[in-house]
Amino acid sequence: MSFDPNNLKYDAAGLIPCIAQDEASGEVLMMAWMNAQSVARTLETGKVTYWSRSRQAFWVKGESSGHVQSLVDLRLDCDRDCLLALVHQVGPACHTNRRSCFYTAVRDGEEVELMKPMD
Amino acid sequence: MSFDPNNLKYDAAGLIPCIAQDEASGEVLMMAWMNAQSVARTLETGKVTYWSRSRQAFWVKGESSGHVQSLVDLRLDCDRDCLLALVHQVGPACHTNRRSCFYTAVRDGEEVELMKPMD
Repeated sequence: MSFDPNNLKYDAAGLIPCIAQDEASGEVLMMAWMNAQSVARTLETGKVTYWSRSRQAFWVKGESSGHVQSLVDLRLDCDRDCLLALVHQVGPACHTNRRSCFYTAVRDGEEVELMKPMD
Repeated sequence: MSFDPNNLKYDAAGLIPCIAQDEASGEVLMMAWMNAQSVARTLETGKVTYWSRSRQAFWVKGESSGHVQSLVDLRLDCDRDCLLALVHQVGPACHTNRRSCFYTAVRDGEEVELMKPMD
C-alpha cells in the first residue's frame, strides 16, 4: 500500500506524536509533534521535521543547534496515530544538551537525574 | 526532589503520553495515555496502567489479555509532558498480537509490514 501522510490519524490540532529513537543504541531520545506536512517533509528531505506548537512553525531538528536528526526509518503504529522515527542523532537531542530528553527517573518516590549535559 | 504525578504537564483532557519500551531489547512497543491517577497506580502497583480514551476507564495493560507490562523504570522528559516506561512485556504488546505496535515502516513511499503476529 502506498503511504499518504493524510491517511494518518491526527488530533484536533492536526498533530501526531513522533517518538525519536537512536537507530544504533535504541535509546529513546525525545517525543515531539508533526502535522501532515512535516511528515511529508521528513520523508522528502531525510531531516526529521517537527511542528513546533509554541512557535507554530516547522521545526527542522538541529537547524539552529546543529544537532540534526537524520531519518533512518519511519514507522507508524497499529492505530496510525503515533509515529516512531529511527534516527541518526548528531550530539544531544535535548535542548538541555543531554543526549535524551528522558534523563529523569522516578525511583522510590524521588526524581533522579540519570545523565548530565554533554560537553 | 520527591515526585508528584500532579507536577507533570497534562493536555486539555488531563492526559500525558507514555511510551513503553522493552527494557531488555530496547524495542519501542507502544504509546498510550495516562492521567495523574494512572501514573500513581502504575508506580504503586508496578503494573503499567494507562487511561483508555475510548472506554474512559483505567486500562491495566494485560488485565484481560494476560500480556502484562511490568514496570522496570519510569522516566519523564525535560518538559515533563511525556513519559517513558521501561517495561518487562509478557507476549505481544499490540492488540494485533504483534510484539510492537510499530510494525509498519514507510519505505520508498510504500507501507511495509515488518513483523507478523506472534503464535
